[in-house]
Amino acid sequence: MKYSFKNDYSEGCHPRILEALSRHNMSQQVGYGLDEFSQSVETIIQEKTQCSVAKVHLVSGGTQANLIVISSILRPYQSVISATTGHIFTNESGAIEATGHKVHGVETPHGKLTPEHIQEVLDSHTNIPHQVMPKLVYISNSTEIGTIYTRAELEKLSLFCKEKGLYLFMDGARLGHALTAEPNDLTLEDIAHYTDVFYLGGTKNGALIGEAIVMTNPKLQDNFGFHIKQKGAMLAKGRLLGIQFLELLRDDWYLELATHANQQAMKLKKAFESLGYSFLADTYTNQIFPILKNSDIEHLSQYFDFYVWKPIDETTFAIRLITSWATPDDAVAHFIEILKKRK
Amino acid sequence: MKYSFKNDYSEGCHPRILEALSRHNMSQQVGYGLDEFSQSVETIIQEKTQCSVAKVHLVSGGTQANLIVISSILRPYQSVISATTGHIFTNESGAIEATGHKVHGVETPHGKLTPEHIQEVLDSHTNIPHQVMPKLVYISNSTEIGTIYTRAELEKLSLFCKEKGLYLFMDGARLGHALTAEPNDLTLEDIAHYTDVFYLGGTKNGALIGEAIVMTNPKLQDNFGFHIKQKGAMLAKGRLLGIQFLELLRDDWYLELATHANQQAMKLKKAFESLGYSFLADTYTNQIFPILKNSDIEHLSQYFDFYVWKPIDETTFAIRLITSWATPDDAVAHFIEILKKRK
Amino acid sequence: MKYSFKNDYSEGCHPRILEALSRHNMSQQVGYGLDEFSQSVETIIQEKTQCSVAKVHLVSGGTQANLIVISSILRPYQSVISATTGHIFTNESGAIEATGHKVHGVETPHGKLTPEHIQEVLDSHTNIPHQVMPKLVYISNSTEIGTIYTRAELEKLSLFCKEKGLYLFMDGARLGHALTAEPNDLTLEDIAHYTDVFYLGGTKNGALIGEAIVMTNPKLQDNFGFHIKQKGAMLAKGRLLGIQFLELLRDDWYLELATHANQQAMKLKKAFESLGYSFLADTYTNQIFPILKNSDIEHLSQYFDFYVWKPIDETTFAIRLITSWATPDDAVAHFIEILKKRK
Amino acid sequence: MKYSFKNDYSEGCHPRILEALSRHNMSQQVGYGLDEFSQSVETIIQEKTQCSVAKVHLVSGGTQANLIVISSILRPYQSVISATTGHIFTNESGAIEATGHKVHGVETPHGKLTPEHIQEVLDSHTNIPHQVMPKLVYISNSTEIGTIYTRAELEKLSLFCKEKGLYLFMDGARLGHALTAEPNDLTLEDIAHYTDVFYLGGTKNGALIGEAIVMTNPKLQDNFGFHIKQKGAMLAKGRLLGIQFLELLRDDWYLELATHANQQAMKLKKAFESLGYSFLADTYTNQIFPILKNSDIEHLSQYFDFYVWKPIDETTFAIRLITSWATPDDAVAHFIEILKKRK
Repeated sequence: MKYSFKNDYSEGCHPRILEALSRHNMSQQVGYGLDEFSQSVETIIQEKTQCSVAKVHLVSGGTQANLIVISSILRPYQSVISATTGHIFTNESGAIEATGHKVHGVETPHGKLTPEHIQEVLDSHTNIPHQVMPKLVYISNSTEIGTIYTRAELEKLSLFCKEKGLYLFMDGARLGHALTAEPNDLTLEDIAHYTDVFYLGGTKNGALIGEAIVMTNPKLQDNFGFHIKQKGAMLAKGRLLGIQFLELLRDDWYLELATHANQQAMKLKKAFESLGYSFLADTYTNQIFPILKNSDIEHLSQYFDFYVWKPIDETTFAIRLITSWATPDDAVAHFIEILKKRK
Repeated sequence: MKYSFKNDYSEGCHPRILEALSRHNMSQQVGYGLDEFSQSVETIIQEKTQCSVAKVHLVSGGTQANLIVISSILRPYQSVISATTGHIFTNESGAIEATGHKVHGVETPHGKLTPEHIQEVLDSHTNIPHQVMPKLVYISNSTEIGTIYTRAELEKLSLFCKEKGLYLFMDGARLGHALTAEPNDLTLEDIAHYTDVFYLGGTKNGALIGEAIVMTNPKLQDNFGFHIKQKGAMLAKGRLLGIQFLELLRDDWYLELATHANQQAMKLKKAFESLGYSFLADTYTNQIFPILKNSDIEHLSQYFDFYVWKPIDETTFAIRLITSWATPDDAVAHFIEILKKRK
Repeated sequence: MKYSFKNDYSEGCHPRILEALSRHNMSQQVGYGLDEFSQSVETIIQEKTQCSVAKVHLVSGGTQANLIVISSILRPYQSVISATTGHIFTNESGAIEATGHKVHGVETPHGKLTPEHIQEVLDSHTNIPHQVMPKLVYISNSTEIGTIYTRAELEKLSLFCKEKGLYLFMDGARLGHALTAEPNDLTLEDIAHYTDVFYLGGTKNGALIGEAIVMTNPKLQDNFGFHIKQKGAMLAKGRLLGIQFLELLRDDWYLELATHANQQAMKLKKAFESLGYSFLADTYTNQIFPILKNSDIEHLSQYFDFYVWKPIDETTFAIRLITSWATPDDAVAHFIEILKKRK
Repeated sequence: MKYSFKNDYSEGCHPRILEALSRHNMSQQVGYGLDEFSQSVETIIQEKTQCSVAKVHLVSGGTQANLIVISSILRPYQSVISATTGHIFTNESGAIEATGHKVHGVETPHGKLTPEHIQEVLDSHTNIPHQVMPKLVYISNSTEIGTIYTRAELEKLSLFCKEKGLYLFMDGARLGHALTAEPNDLTLEDIAHYTDVFYLGGTKNGALIGEAIVMTNPKLQDNFGFHIKQKGAMLAKGRLLGIQFLELLRDDWYLELATHANQQAMKLKKAFESLGYSFLADTYTNQIFPILKNSDIEHLSQYFDFYVWKPIDETTFAIRLITSWATPDDAVAHFIEILKKRK
């Protein structure tokens, strides 16, 4: 069996999660998110974000979080702006459009949006009412290609959105990895302050399932439970989500898991760098995109599973290697050994 | 802490489920339902239903299963027929309508549909194209009020639907409880034969989450994965569903769990009967609806949690008591003791 | 060729409408509802309704008006209440559900809703967020079975809706016929005062096409143009609607046309009454529903076209006779003659 | 009053249309598209396209035609490919997305799609089922920037679509102008042969309203009336559309009207050419896009209305001049005179 660097959801969950589920297993709880665990998660996140008005809703996965949040915010004639690499633009099988809304795709060099990108969309949508009204900006942190937003970048984006009457939504499926990247200068508190809504991803950081949607803008909070229910996302046993997040958030263990994932990726990155390889993007999170010759890719594929991400020129490709809370030292060491031998 | 008879999803899951999750926890698996466990579940269900062409898709919950199945089958101008007690008609926050389809609600005495009920809807929808086209019949087994379909009833309904060009869909959120009810004469094989699609509920029968959608009609199978993904229901860690169903289906343990639930309900039922109480519906599954005076309800409420279901007349109400795989003998005994003392 | 009493849109339009279209035909106008005629219609309606904040939007037909108004008002989890005879419940091919919203159908004796009917729906939708949230009440005046609301009835309904936080919407496809019915005591001013939005139907009262949506509640007015455009209802040549309504509204000619239609129907009604026939509903507008034996229906069918509306018992049926601005005296006289001879 | 070259729907309709409406005005007709005029239009179009299986449906406008056709063809997970200049991508206020479907925008030099453009979209949508499935290709002829498809181009596109299992849909809001452009080599018969569905625009070619949707692929025809009704597009007085198209199609008068529009535009084009101006696109239909300095635009604006289309560089802009069946010789002569004087 080849070790897989294909994604960060190949294993079940961190054993501590299963232990927590066992510990509380037979206590009777109210269903549909009203269990005591889910309620505690809200309180803890309010504290960690220093945002006492925040409302927290736990759902199963990222596409689900995205489609519920976006369709809950927009009126029928409003649209959302995303990078073309954004998960909602390219990898959700039209989930946002299925709720009735256009997604504007903006080409960006590093998967990140700037005020200039957004202004361009606004400028080309002034023919009222013949064109949709852009109303929401969707960003991911870390992005789908592993990059992160700096505090200055997020602040600038946030001010721009407020000025233009746009809401700002951060997809945090890999927020732990962003917050623990070496060059990161953002805190959860910052994110709560600069966005109107974001989520904290569990699925890719040690949980079985689970994303914690944090709505910080009170204007967006009303009746959000209806949207969750209507989209089939309200688990009868909401405790499954509550217990997991309680455990992840205890003593910031969530950040420890992400730090491990990032460190394993950085070991791989350094190995590639020391051998003179270049990268599709300069990343510090748990995804790296080294550029390799086809023959090298074939060689590595004999030992490991990973995605061939995109062609760079006729003979080279960027591959994607992802690490996680579960990536063992020996898998990383083995990969580096094989890589070095090849060179 | 009062013991709760409010629903059959108050506890976490049967400990065997957690053990199975632990056992397979660190094996790396492909994501999004392509894991080896989910694949095995399909094979096993094909065997148990004697339907080799069946396709099986695992999702998290009942509302999700309902909205995905129904919206995948219907064209935009088609509608679905349900009893007014049906979950999709009354308890899914408009989830079906949100996918664009009308749900016809038919008043029925016992939560069950007959050809006569459906014919009535067809007869009142002949003004083409000014009225929607009924195309799908939705039934639940056991129903939302605990009743079950007999083999003869289901066969009759199935033949009628085929004759009229209607599809037949069985919501099996509590299918285990139906199959193990004392008067039941249906098998999984019958259900696969008589319906076009049904599902086997895990959430209410010992699992953490999970419903196994079984599409037996090959005409409805194409591209079903797109619908699951688009509605945000495709878990990255599909293994979570696969492992649970593998365990539930091993040696028909699934039926054992449901049998336990039914037996506990029948003990309660007999106690009420012996004391002369009447019921809203004559049920043999894990839900009973005894009719009590308000003062009796207040008394029982001091000791137990349960739903007051609906008013019968000015002084009496039907209450709902639900039991599950987890309901212990002593809780049942305690309830009966309190009830008898009161009398 | 048999004369048809099947509906009130069998002819083209009143010749004055064609004259008005000719008169203004070659003047160049801005498109999409910004033409000078449509703008004038708004001003005139503001005056006639004594509602200076009203916004007026002209669209082509009733189903279109209904689906745009309703989907513009409701959030995704909200629903609309209608009589089961209501056009949106039964005769729009699921148009409202196609925009994502449930329509609650309430059985009513005369096609009219009362606060009691609505309270019943509210009472059965208290399980938040598992059930949709009723938010809008849809009524028709005159109704689909020809009855009308009195001032007292509308006031009561309006107060009830305000108290419950519901919006009130009146479908006025046949509003002219309601306003000119003999027992009517409502004015346009009343309707603007008691509803949040209504429309004034042109298609069934002399125009080629056209319904004038009047939004009196400022809270519902924002960005309504987007909804019209998005649903494909914004005519490039909005002048076609503007010119027609200008003509209809000049000197209340609109009411004259409806008066003629009503008078012709009342002649037919009196003839049936004098011969001892009974009716499905006691109507004073341009629809009557006399109850006839099958043999009588067959006889009349040799001379005239009309709808057989619904069976009353094994040998009798209610038929529907509709008159319009175009119904000539001799057609009415001929019908009465045939009817009397038969008796 | 300045003469307007802003669009081809500034006037009412050709007087012959009003005469035809008057001629048939008082004949009683069945409603909802079943009138004798609409039925005849189908027969005539079947003959003109040499496509006896074609079904014809008349609707009011282009956005309406587009959203009904597209949503009737696609399953929920399927998408449509358009040029970024395509009306559905940019100018319909999200009408297609509102029916649940993604529109892929492809950058093209002249508003026209080629197999290469489409192959690119297909190549980037292979991750099943995580990405939408492109299923329909939308083209306009003439395009939104006045260009047209040659027979060879359309044939190539058609073969490519068939090979890839894609449907081909031609928006013909200005099809008359395309068919009568000087370099055109396509016939109605060709278009019926190479596309699965197209429409013939009336609104921009002399009618008050009206687009004739022609479905030539029998696989797409079933139950189309339901879609029209559900979207609110089925006129009670379908005769209004039928009579107009009968008149437009008599003796190919439709082509005469478009020829006039094109000729007027070509006169303007030649004037600009003779003065050395360049153009945004090389067009032969009723739209021209000359590139002018800002000062010239300001000067012309004192005498005529037209759109400033898009900036070319810091000091020049492309403007759009549109002519129509109604553009009189003297307006064209006046424009040329003013233009030449300025130079």
